[in-house]
Amino acid sequence: MIPQIGAARLLTRLEELAHLTDPARPYTRRAFTPLYEQGRAWLRAEMEQAGLTVTMDAGGNLIGRRAGSTPDAPTLLIGSHTDTVVGGGRFDGILGVLAALEVAHSLHDAGHELTHALEVVDFLSEEPSDYGASCVGSRALAGTLTPELLAQTNAHGETLEHAVRRAGGRPELLHGPLREAGSVAAYLELHIEQGPVLETAGVPIGVVSGIVGIERWELTFGGRPDHAGTTPMTLRQDALVGAAGCVSLLHRLALEADRHAPLVATVGQLRVSPGNSNVIPGEVTLIFEARALDAERLSGFVADFLEQADSLARGADVRLSAKLVSRAAPLVCGVQLQSAVRAACAELNLPCLTLPSGAGHDAMQVGLLAPAGMLFVPSVGGRSHTPEELTREADVLAGARVLLGAVLKLDEALSA
Amino acid sequence: MIPQIGAARLLTRLEELAHLTDPARPYTRRAFTPLYEQGRAWLRAEMEQAGLTVTMDAGGNLIGRRAGSTPDAPTLLIGSHTDTVVGGGRFDGILGVLAALEVAHSLHDAGHELTHALEVVDFLSEEPSDYGASCVGSRALAGTLTPELLAQTNAHGETLEHAVRRAGGRPELLHGPLREAGSVAAYLELHIEQGPVLETAGVPIGVVSGIVGIERWELTFGGRPDHAGTTPMTLRQDALVGAAGCVSLLHRLALEADRHAPLVATVGQLRVSPGNSNVIPGEVTLIFEARALDAERLSGFVADFLEQADSLARGADVRLSAKLVSRAAPLVCGVQLQSAVRAACAELNLPCLTLPSGAGHDAMQVGLLAPAGMLFVPSVGGRSHTPEELTREADVLAGARVLLGAVLKLDEALSA
Repeated sequence: MIPQIGAARLLTRLEELAHLTDPARPYTRRAFTPLYEQGRAWLRAEMEQAGLTVTMDAGGNLIGRRAGSTPDAPTLLIGSHTDTVVGGGRFDGILGVLAALEVAHSLHDAGHELTHALEVVDFLSEEPSDYGASCVGSRALAGTLTPELLAQTNAHGETLEHAVRRAGGRPELLHGPLREAGSVAAYLELHIEQGPVLETAGVPIGVVSGIVGIERWELTFGGRPDHAGTTPMTLRQDALVGAAGCVSLLHRLALEADRHAPLVATVGQLRVSPGNSNVIPGEVTLIFEARALDAERLSGFVADFLEQADSLARGADVRLSAKLVSRAAPLVCGVQLQSAVRAACAELNLPCLTLPSGAGHDAMQVGLLAPAGMLFVPSVGGRSHTPEELTREADVLAGARVLLGAVLKLDEALSA
Repeated sequence: MIPQIGAARLLTRLEELAHLTDPARPYTRRAFTPLYEQGRAWLRAEMEQAGLTVTMDAGGNLIGRRAGSTPDAPTLLIGSHTDTVVGGGRFDGILGVLAALEVAHSLHDAGHELTHALEVVDFLSEEPSDYGASCVGSRALAGTLTPELLAQTNAHGETLEHAVRRAGGRPELLHGPLREAGSVAAYLELHIEQGPVLETAGVPIGVVSGIVGIERWELTFGGRPDHAGTTPMTLRQDALVGAAGCVSLLHRLALEADRHAPLVATVGQLRVSPGNSNVIPGEVTLIFEARALDAERLSGFVADFLEQADSLARGADVRLSAKLVSRAAPLVCGVQLQSAVRAACAELNLPCLTLPSGAGHDAMQVGLLAPAGMLFVPSVGGRSHTPEELTREADVLAGARVLLGAVLKLDEALSA
C-alpha cells in the first residue's frame, strides 16, 4: 500500500493546534507558557496515535520515533517548532511539525517500513525567546546552547536553564551535541516561506539552497548640531545628510547585487540626535544588515559598501564610524536533500524553484550536526509573524506530499 | 560732549547679569523664575542709574525711558531680552539689552539730548517658554499674544496669563497693540549672529536685511514592514529608502538655491517604524523646514521640493503625504534702519556685511507695529544656546558703538 497524506487529518490538526492561542492576542503560543505545554501535551497524544514512541531529549525537544528496518542505520529527522511570536500566525513552525507527523502517520497507516528510523521533532523555543536566545532546542541538539545562553534571564529573572528544565529538558546534560556524529542521516524541515518569492513566481514548492549568513553593523555619523536657521548650506556638517546618502547607497548596491544572486540589505533602525526640527542633526546612528548565502560574497559586499559609505560621508563633511554588531555564518543545504525534494516534486508534477532562506530556522543549528535541508511553501503576500499569515490549503497539502515523497527518496538514497 | 560707549561698564554688566545663572546648568535664567526676577530687579536699578525712568507695560516688558527734546515725537525703541534657554550662553539676548542700556547711559553721561524719546526695553520671555509660546513680551506689544496663547499652560498647569501677571504684566489689558500706530518711530536690536557667516567672512558687523520666513512640513512615507531577510530587493516598499532619497533631494535643492540668495532647508527630525533591524521600515515620518527672506521664493522652493519628492517616493514604491506644520511670514527690515547701521559702521571704519537673520527675534513681532531693524555681531564658531557661546570683547564693543551711532543717525534722519 502506497503511503498517502491524510489531507483532512492534517488540516484538522493545523486548525486544532493553531487555535491553542492566547485569546487576547491571536495567534500567540509562547514557549515555556502553560498554553505551550498544553499544545505539546496534545502533540504527544497525536504522535502516539500515529504509532510513534514519544520521548523528550535533554534539550526539551519533543520527539516521536518510528523504528526502521535496519536497527543500526542512522536516523532521518523531520520537524520544526510549535512556539510562536507574540501575535504571530497559524502556520509558522507548526506546519513543519504537523506535516512531519502526518508523514509518519501515513507511513504507519500504510504499514510502510523505512530502512532508517524516522523521528518527528518539535524543537523547543525556536522563536526569539523571552530569555534572549532563539532556536533553544535545536541549539541544544547541536551542542551550541552554551552556559552563557543558559544563564540568560527573562524579565522575571528566571534563567533559561530553569525554563528548559520546566519544559522537561535536562540542562545539566548539555555538554555537547546530543547525538553522536553520524547518528543522524539527515534533517528535513518544511516551513512557510515568510517571503513573497514563491507567490510572485506562482510556484508551490521552494527547494531551499541554504540559509543565508547575516552581517549586522552599527554606523555612527558625526556632524555638528548647528542652528538650522543661521547656518548656511555650505557651512553645515549634517549627520543626517551623510546617513541618508548611505541608506540610498546601500539600497542601490544591494539592488544591483540581488539581480545576480540573492542578496538583501536593509537599514531597519535609524536614530537622529538631537532630533529638533530647528537643529541640524549632529549625530545619526543606524543599524544595517546584509544577508547572502555565500559568506565571502557577503563580506565582500559589506566591505565594498563600507568603503563607498566612508567616502560619501567624507564628502558630506561627516565622520563615519562602523562597528560590527553580529555575524552569523550561512548554512548550505545538503545536495542529496535538495535532490530528494526536487525528485519528489517531479513525481507529483509540482513545479519548484530553488531559493535561499532569508530567515533563520532550526535547520541552521541541526546543519552543524548532520546534512540539513528545507522546503518552503508560499506565504500569501509574503507575510508572516502576523495574524494574517496564510498558506493556502492546496499549498499546505502539496508541501506535506513533497515532504513524504522526499523522505521516501532519502530513505532509499541514503541506504544505497 | 560726544557720547562714548563705556567699555568697562558694559563688559562688567554683561559679566554680572550672565552670572545670575542656575549654578547647576550654566547659563540658565529662564523667564518667570526667581532668578529671572532677580536679574530684572538688578536691571531696573542699572536703568535708574543711567537716568532712565523705569516702567513695566501690560505685556510684562521692562522699559527704561529717556525723554526727547520734542515731546510729541515718536519713540525710538532699542533692546532685546534677558531670558535664556536651559544651558544657554552669556550673550544671547542680554547683549542687546545691556548695549541699549549703555547707549542710553552714554547719552546721559554726555548730557546729549535726542529729538526723540529713547526707550530701552527688556522684552519678556523671548526664548521658547515653558508655556509653548516664544516672544511673549514683544507679541504683547504688537498685539499678537492671543487669548489662545495666554491660555496655554506649563508642566505644572499654570497658564501663561497667570505667569505674565506674576512677572508684573497686566494680561487683562492685552486686547491689541500696546502702542498707538505711529507712536514708535523705529525699533533697533543688537544681537549675536548665532551663525557662522560673520566669523567666516571676518567681518565684525552684520546689517540684518530681514528675518526669514519659515515653513515647516511633516512628511510621512508609507511602505510595507516586510521581513528584511525574506523579501527580495525588487519586491520591497522600504519607507526609509524613500525618505532618505528625499533628505538628499532637499539638501541638494537648498544647496543650489542658497548659492543665489540665502535659503536653508533642514530635516531635523526623523522617526523609523517599526524600527527593528530585521524589519523593512514600514513608515517614516520626518519634519523638514525651509527658511528664506522672500516669502514667494520660499513657498516656490517648498512646492518644487514637494513635487520632486512625490515622484521620487513613487519611484521607490512608497506613498508620500505632506502636512503643513507651521508657516511664519518673513520680516523685511526697515531701509532707513539698515542705512543708519551702515552709516554708523562707515563712520567707525568698521566693515559690515548684509545678511538675513535665520533665527527668530523680538524684532519680528515689533516689526508688525513699526519699522524694525537689527545688527549682528559674530558668534565664535557660529555657536549659541550652549555654554560655549562666545562673542569676543572687541566685537561686543564694536556692536555697542554701532548701535549708539545708528541711534544718533536715526534720531537725525527721522526728525528731518
